[in-house]
Amino acid sequence: MSKNITSIEIDYSKWYNDIVVQADLADHSAVRGCMVIKPHGYAIWEKMQQALDKMFKDTGHVNAYFPLFIPKSLFEAEEKNAEGFAKECAIVTHYRLKADPQNKGKLIVDPDAKLEEELIVRPTSEAIIWNTYKGWIQSYRDLPLLINQWANVVRWEMRTRFFLRTAEFLWQEGHTAHSTEKEAIEEAERMLNVYADFSENWLAIPVIKGLKTSNERFAGAEETYCIEALMQDGKALQAGTSHFLGQNFAKAFDVKFANKEGKLDYVWATSWGVSTRLMGALIMSHSDDKGLVIPPKLAPTQVVIVPIYKSEEGLEKITEQVNLLMTKLKLNNISVKYDNRDSQRPGWKFAEYELKGIPVRIAIGERDLESGTIEIARRDLLSKEIVSINQAEEYIVKLLDEIQNNLFKKASERTQKMTHTVDSFIEFKRLLDEEPGFILAHWDGTPETEEKIKEETKATIRCIPLNNIKEEGLCIYSGKPSKQRVLFARAY
Amino acid sequence: MSKNITSIEIDYSKWYNDIVVQADLADHSAVRGCMVIKPHGYAIWEKMQQALDKMFKDTGHVNAYFPLFIPKSLFEAEEKNAEGFAKECAIVTHYRLKADPQNKGKLIVDPDAKLEEELIVRPTSEAIIWNTYKGWIQSYRDLPLLINQWANVVRWEMRTRFFLRTAEFLWQEGHTAHSTEKEAIEEAERMLNVYADFSENWLAIPVIKGLKTSNERFAGAEETYCIEALMQDGKALQAGTSHFLGQNFAKAFDVKFANKEGKLDYVWATSWGVSTRLMGALIMSHSDDKGLVIPPKLAPTQVVIVPIYKSEEGLEKITEQVNLLMTKLKLNNISVKYDNRDSQRPGWKFAEYELKGIPVRIAIGERDLESGTIEIARRDLLSKEIVSINQAEEYIVKLLDEIQNNLFKKASERTQKMTHTVDSFIEFKRLLDEEPGFILAHWDGTPETEEKIKEETKATIRCIPLNNIKEEGLCIYSGKPSKQRVLFARAY
Repeated sequence: MSKNITSIEIDYSKWYNDIVVQADLADHSAVRGCMVIKPHGYAIWEKMQQALDKMFKDTGHVNAYFPLFIPKSLFEAEEKNAEGFAKECAIVTHYRLKADPQNKGKLIVDPDAKLEEELIVRPTSEAIIWNTYKGWIQSYRDLPLLINQWANVVRWEMRTRFFLRTAEFLWQEGHTAHSTEKEAIEEAERMLNVYADFSENWLAIPVIKGLKTSNERFAGAEETYCIEALMQDGKALQAGTSHFLGQNFAKAFDVKFANKEGKLDYVWATSWGVSTRLMGALIMSHSDDKGLVIPPKLAPTQVVIVPIYKSEEGLEKITEQVNLLMTKLKLNNISVKYDNRDSQRPGWKFAEYELKGIPVRIAIGERDLESGTIEIARRDLLSKEIVSINQAEEYIVKLLDEIQNNLFKKASERTQKMTHTVDSFIEFKRLLDEEPGFILAHWDGTPETEEKIKEETKATIRCIPLNNIKEEGLCIYSGKPSKQRVLFARAY
Repeated sequence: MSKNITSIEIDYSKWYNDIVVQADLADHSAVRGCMVIKPHGYAIWEKMQQALDKMFKDTGHVNAYFPLFIPKSLFEAEEKNAEGFAKECAIVTHYRLKADPQNKGKLIVDPDAKLEEELIVRPTSEAIIWNTYKGWIQSYRDLPLLINQWANVVRWEMRTRFFLRTAEFLWQEGHTAHSTEKEAIEEAERMLNVYADFSENWLAIPVIKGLKTSNERFAGAEETYCIEALMQDGKALQAGTSHFLGQNFAKAFDVKFANKEGKLDYVWATSWGVSTRLMGALIMSHSDDKGLVIPPKLAPTQVVIVPIYKSEEGLEKITEQVNLLMTKLKLNNISVKYDNRDSQRPGWKFAEYELKGIPVRIAIGERDLESGTIEIARRDLLSKEIVSINQAEEYIVKLLDEIQNNLFKKASERTQKMTHTVDSFIEFKRLLDEEPGFILAHWDGTPETEEKIKEETKATIRCIPLNNIKEEGLCIYSGKPSKQRVLFARAY
C-alpha cells in the first residue's frame, strides 16, 4: 500500500481525497468551493471531452458559445428553473474597483459602479440560450437546432468535494429545439444513450438508464432521464442527465415557429449535460489502495517504459530497443512515455506510475536485452508477464483492450453483486447500513412516501429504470399497491 | 455584391459587422457587451484551438484549469496588475437570490447572502495561478512549470465590438515558472514565435514581432512581446502578446525555490495569450464584399459540392460520382460537404457558401457527367475552372494549398504596400488620414512624446520591431535624437 493513501477499507472518503491529491488530479484553491484541476487530471478530462465531442458531432450537433452572465430578468423568466437555482447563484452587482482611500495599495468595490440589473453567473444556460433562440427560430425550416456548449458553470454549494461537488465546474450542455414533442423526446433519449455508451465503453462504468421521479427532476423539465452508476462503497452517482423540457422555455421566452401549414406553435426543447463529476466517477469506480486506475481509452499516457541499467552504455543499448518499440506502438495510436530520468530509481518510478494510474508499465533491463524479453505490468491486476520483445507490440495492443474490458467487467460484476431486490422496509434499512448498494423495491408512486423514505434512511430514488419489468407489488413503506420496482440508493 | 453586406469601400466598420452577422459567426446577446458565438464562428475558433493546442504541447506545455473567481485580497497583491485591471472588473458580491416579497414570481438579491470577501471574475489569471504555484514549487526540481489554460475571462469594456472587444471573451493563457531569468525570457520569446508561426501559417496573416513600449506594456510585466498585424483598412491589430513577468508575481505571492546550491530565490515568470480576437483579425484580413474568406487550414468545411440537376434520376447519377470524389477527398483529410438539399436552388447555395467563406466550391451537373468534368470555384479569387473529374482529387489538394499561400501572399503584399517610412510629423499625420497603415518613424524614447503623439493623432506605438535595423535619426515629434525607428499605427 502506498504510504500516502488511506486504505479504501479504512476510510473510503479519505481514500478518495488522497487519490485526487496524491495522483495530482486536483488541488484546493483560495476560492471557497472551487478547485484547481491539475495537468494530470485535466489531461484525462480532455480525453473525455474529445470522445464526447465526437459522439455529439456524429449525432448531428454543433458547438457554440453563450455568455457567462444571465441578466436577472431573464434568469427569473422560467419560474421553476429560477426557483430551483436561486439559492445557489453567484451574483455580479458591480463592474469596477477603485483605490481604497483608507488603505494604500488596497482596492474596494466602487459604489458608483453598481449595475442597473444584477447578473447571475450561469448555473445552467437555458435562460440565456432560449432568449437567443427566440431570434433564430421563425419557421420549421430553422428546426431542429442541435447545439452544444463546453463551458464553466457556478452553483454555490455549501459542502464541496473534489470533482463531485464544486462551486465552479466544467461541463457540456446541449440545448436543442424541435418542431414536435416526439422529436424532442427522441432527442432526449438519444443523448441519454450517448451518455450510457460513453460511460460503459470509455469510462468502463456500467450504468442504469432511467427516469427521475418528479422530486428529483431538473427544475423546469417535464421529464429527466439519467444514468446512474454504483461506486465501490455502494453509493450511487448520477453520471449524466438528459431533459425533455416540453414547451416550458419556449413559453417563458416566447419562442414560436410557423409549421408547414403556417400555424404558429411553441418550440419543443431538450437539454443534457455531463460534467467534471465524471472524473469523480472514474476515480471511485476503478482505483485501489495503490492509487488511480485509468481505463486505457481515457489514459493520456497508456504505456510507460522504465529502463533498468547500471551503466551509460547499458542505457544506450536499452534506449535503442525502446525507440524501436515506441515507434511501433505509436503507429498503433498508443500514447507511450519513456522515463529515462536518472534523478529517480526504477522502484520510485514504478510506484509513481501505479499511483497515477498508467494502464501498462514496461520494465526493460540490461539482462532482458540478452534474453530478448521485457517485463510488462498491468495496472488493473497489478500482475506482470515476461514477454518476448518481438511480440511486445501485438501483446500490448491486445492488453490495452483487455484492461479496458476487464475494468468494465469488474465494475459490472460488483454492481450486480451490490444490487438487491427487497420487499420490506426493515430489510431495506438493514441493507443500506450493512450491504450498501442499489436496491430495487416497490414504491407507491407518491412524492410524500419518497420524501419520508429519504428522511428516514438518506436513500433516494435514483431512477425508475427504463427497461423495467412491470410487476405488481406493495410499497415497502406505505404498503400501497405498486406496478414496478424503482431503484433506491444513498447517493453522492 | 451580396445585398446584405455593406461594401468595404463604403463603410469598413459596417462591412465588418455585416460579415459577422450575415456569415453567422456571432450574434448580439441580452448581456451588455457580451456576444454569442454562433456555430459557424465557433467551428473556426475550434480549428484555431486545435492548431494552437498542438503547438503548445509540442513545445512542452500541459493544460490545467484554475478558478473563475479571484478573491479581492489576492487580486490586489500584485499592485500594478491590480491597478491595470481594477477599472474593468465584474465583481461577485452575493451568493443567493430570494423571492421578491413585493413582486410575485420575481427574485431579488438576498442581502443576507453577502460574501465576506468580494470575488473578482478573472480578467486574467496571474493572481490565482501564482497563489497556487506557491504550493507547487519548492525546489529547482519543480521547475520549469509550463502550464496553459483555455478559459473565458471578463473585462468590463464600455465600447464593445464583435470579437475585437467584448466584455467576456475566450482565450488561452499560458503561465510558466522558471528558475532563471534567461530561461523565462527564452520562454516568452519562444511563445511569441509560436504565435507568429500560427498567425502566418494558419491565419495567413503576416505579423511584425516586437516589444511594447512601457506605456503599452501588460500591467505587471517587465517586458511585453507582441505580434502586430495590419487590417485592410490600414488599422493595426495586436494579435497576441507574450510577457516576461520577471519576479513580480513571485514576490507578490512569495513564491521561492531552492536552487541546486540550496539557496532560496524568487521564481521567474512568463504569461502569454491569444483570444477570440483572432477571429476579428481573420475576418478583417481576408474577407470581401461577397462575405467571409477563410484560409483552408482553418475552414471547418474546406470543400462544398453542389449538384445541378433536373430530375431525380439525374441527381442519382451525380450523387454516385460525388460519393466517389468525397471518399477520395476524405482520404486526404479534406473536410467536404455535399449540399443536395432540394429546398434551395444552386444559385442561392453558391451565394451562401461565398458568404460563409468556404474555400472551394464544386458544381457538378448532368451535362458535366457526360463530359467527365466538374466546375471548381475558389473563394479567394472568385474564379472558376473546368477540371476533369479524374484529376479533381489532385487538383483540389493543390488548390487548397494554393489558396492558403495566396491569402498570405496577398496580405503580405498589402501590408508591405501600406507600410511607410516617415521622417516628419506633417507627413506622419497626412499618411494617417490619407493612406493609413504602419508607419516606421523615429521616436525619442520617452513616454511623454508617445502620449502626445497619441493625443494629437490617435496613433500609438504598436511595437519596437525585434528585427530592427539600428539607425540614427531624429524624433518626428520632439526632434530629439533616436537610435531606431518604431512602428506606429492607429489600432483596434
